[in-house]
Amino acid sequence: MRLGVDAMGGDFAPTEVVRGAISARDILEEGDQIVLAGQREAIEPLLNECPDWRSFIRIAHSPEVVGMDDPPVEAVRAKPNSSIALLAKMHKQKEVDAIISAGNTGACVAAWQMNLRRLAGVHRPGIAVIMPTFHNPIVLCDVGANVDCRPQHLFQYAIMASLYLEHVGGVKSPRIGLLSIGSEAAKGNALVKKTRDLLKSASGLKFVGNVEGRDLLRDVCDVIVCEGFVGNVCLKLMEGLADGLFKGLTAQLGKADPAVASQAKALFRSILGRYDYSEVGGAPLLGVNGICIISHGSSKARAIRSAILKARQFATQGVNELITTHLGRYDTGNGE
Amino acid sequence: MRLGVDAMGGDFAPTEVVRGAISARDILEEGDQIVLAGQREAIEPLLNECPDWRSFIRIAHSPEVVGMDDPPVEAVRAKPNSSIALLAKMHKQKEVDAIISAGNTGACVAAWQMNLRRLAGVHRPGIAVIMPTFHNPIVLCDVGANVDCRPQHLFQYAIMASLYLEHVGGVKSPRIGLLSIGSEAAKGNALVKKTRDLLKSASGLKFVGNVEGRDLLRDVCDVIVCEGFVGNVCLKLMEGLADGLFKGLTAQLGKADPAVASQAKALFRSILGRYDYSEVGGAPLLGVNGICIISHGSSKARAIRSAILKARQFATQGVNELITTHLGRYDTGNGE
Repeated sequence: MRLGVDAMGGDFAPTEVVRGAISARDILEEGDQIVLAGQREAIEPLLNECPDWRSFIRIAHSPEVVGMDDPPVEAVRAKPNSSIALLAKMHKQKEVDAIISAGNTGACVAAWQMNLRRLAGVHRPGIAVIMPTFHNPIVLCDVGANVDCRPQHLFQYAIMASLYLEHVGGVKSPRIGLLSIGSEAAKGNALVKKTRDLLKSASGLKFVGNVEGRDLLRDVCDVIVCEGFVGNVCLKLMEGLADGLFKGLTAQLGKADPAVASQAKALFRSILGRYDYSEVGGAPLLGVNGICIISHGSSKARAIRSAILKARQFATQGVNELITTHLGRYDTGNGE
Repeated sequence: MRLGVDAMGGDFAPTEVVRGAISARDILEEGDQIVLAGQREAIEPLLNECPDWRSFIRIAHSPEVVGMDDPPVEAVRAKPNSSIALLAKMHKQKEVDAIISAGNTGACVAAWQMNLRRLAGVHRPGIAVIMPTFHNPIVLCDVGANVDCRPQHLFQYAIMASLYLEHVGGVKSPRIGLLSIGSEAAKGNALVKKTRDLLKSASGLKFVGNVEGRDLLRDVCDVIVCEGFVGNVCLKLMEGLADGLFKGLTAQLGKADPAVASQAKALFRSILGRYDYSEVGGAPLLGVNGICIISHGSSKARAIRSAILKARQFATQGVNELITTHLGRYDTGNGE
């Protein structure tokens, strides 16, 4: 398997991306190769810490770099020779079997959708993030690819995210929840009410009904579907809360009882780290005709390694083939 | 001042509501009265723990009760003699100066909007919650009154919530943020982009631009505006996270180091309690022609007392008059 990795994407690129690629060596199988896309002159010196890197890594040179804050669509147009664009082209031409980036999410979504198109029957791709909780992991989909959702899109997210969680996240027969503002059928906006009807009437789905923000950590479902705006706000709120609570707790504990604080600090960090989806490494853009993994901008080597592992699993489990088969069972009409 | 309180509303009604009313005695001024709306036979026995309750409390009997899970609009229609409906009528007829309920939020919003109508110039009422953080408190508006927002509605929420935070929350010249999925102008959905234009072009507002979910605790703004669906999801997510983190942290700490855990537990509770908006007690339904405070369903006596205090402050500060004056400065066209 050849795994294309964007060496220029992310807040700590290229250093941490290259380190992540090197550290992924042990999860590769015989004949696997990591293709680092980006500026050769920036990447090559970093590879020297692994003398025989050429045995499992090669560089695909791209001179341009999309910045983390570049306006996505414009950046894709203005920088046709970026690492993000190069990966899209290589994947389309089957020169790599999966692509991974911790770069500008909007630019990845735009460039990869445009080049790879959608799987047969898919209305809109969505990003699915597996989030660790104190119970089982849950998957939230969509977290920002699609802010103009129709009920059919959310319905398909439920199916795609379930297959992903089952076959990559290891959760058998996932329970599906629809994010809303109350568990009763009458609660929610028009999008939620129509999606609820679609999910309820579909056979073969474990739909548990509406779930609320407070249910995200309550083990009432395994898959949560929502439109990309809400999902993105939730994801970042969780990130901010975990960070804010960690800082706040240690500061306040320090004031109240320095001895307890110093003992508790390391424990806190490890426990709150479980809420940190950025460490989980990599969320697939489900529904594109390819294997596209988007990592958090703040990814370090460990997260990149983990994203490479996810891409491998996604490919070996045949998630895209499963999606096409399962979606084919439901006629969701015109989702345009 | 006469403060109408729904004795039948909330998970711990009527006991905790009546206790809250009794405990609010010290924040009342000479001549103030609390009017407890609800079933006389349920309320009166609870008042006996305060022998001279008649000096500051009276009961307004209403035979029907709206359940916490009743479908809101239907419940308002089917139970015209509920405490929620009675409070609306009494407030409309100026028999009370403010009304407070920890009952079915949807039913309160429906009954109170219907009876009291809107302040002059207001397109849609919105619920504004002041949330404690490790920095200054922030206010989030709307958290669920309006799930079908237009840009003009969000624009008015910014102004109304700012006045509320300034005059009741004590934050001078609040900074306004618009909840989106990226700080750049190009990010967000159509509603956010249009609202951004309105807020940017309005003079006299401290608009800081788009903010993200992770900014809620980062002290980058004091007022966050969003449509009710997103705001409600965020509010409940924060509630669930604080709860989930508290339980998870104490459980994990207990496994790792029981001694530290037992020492830290009380500290945790007090610190995480700061994130618990349910203890803050009471969020106004801004924009209605009245003073309407909605409390969290899980309110106990302390939260009810705090909601009564908020209603008093709202009235004495003349927030509704300020809203009418300030909104009059901006022509936001037809927000229907």
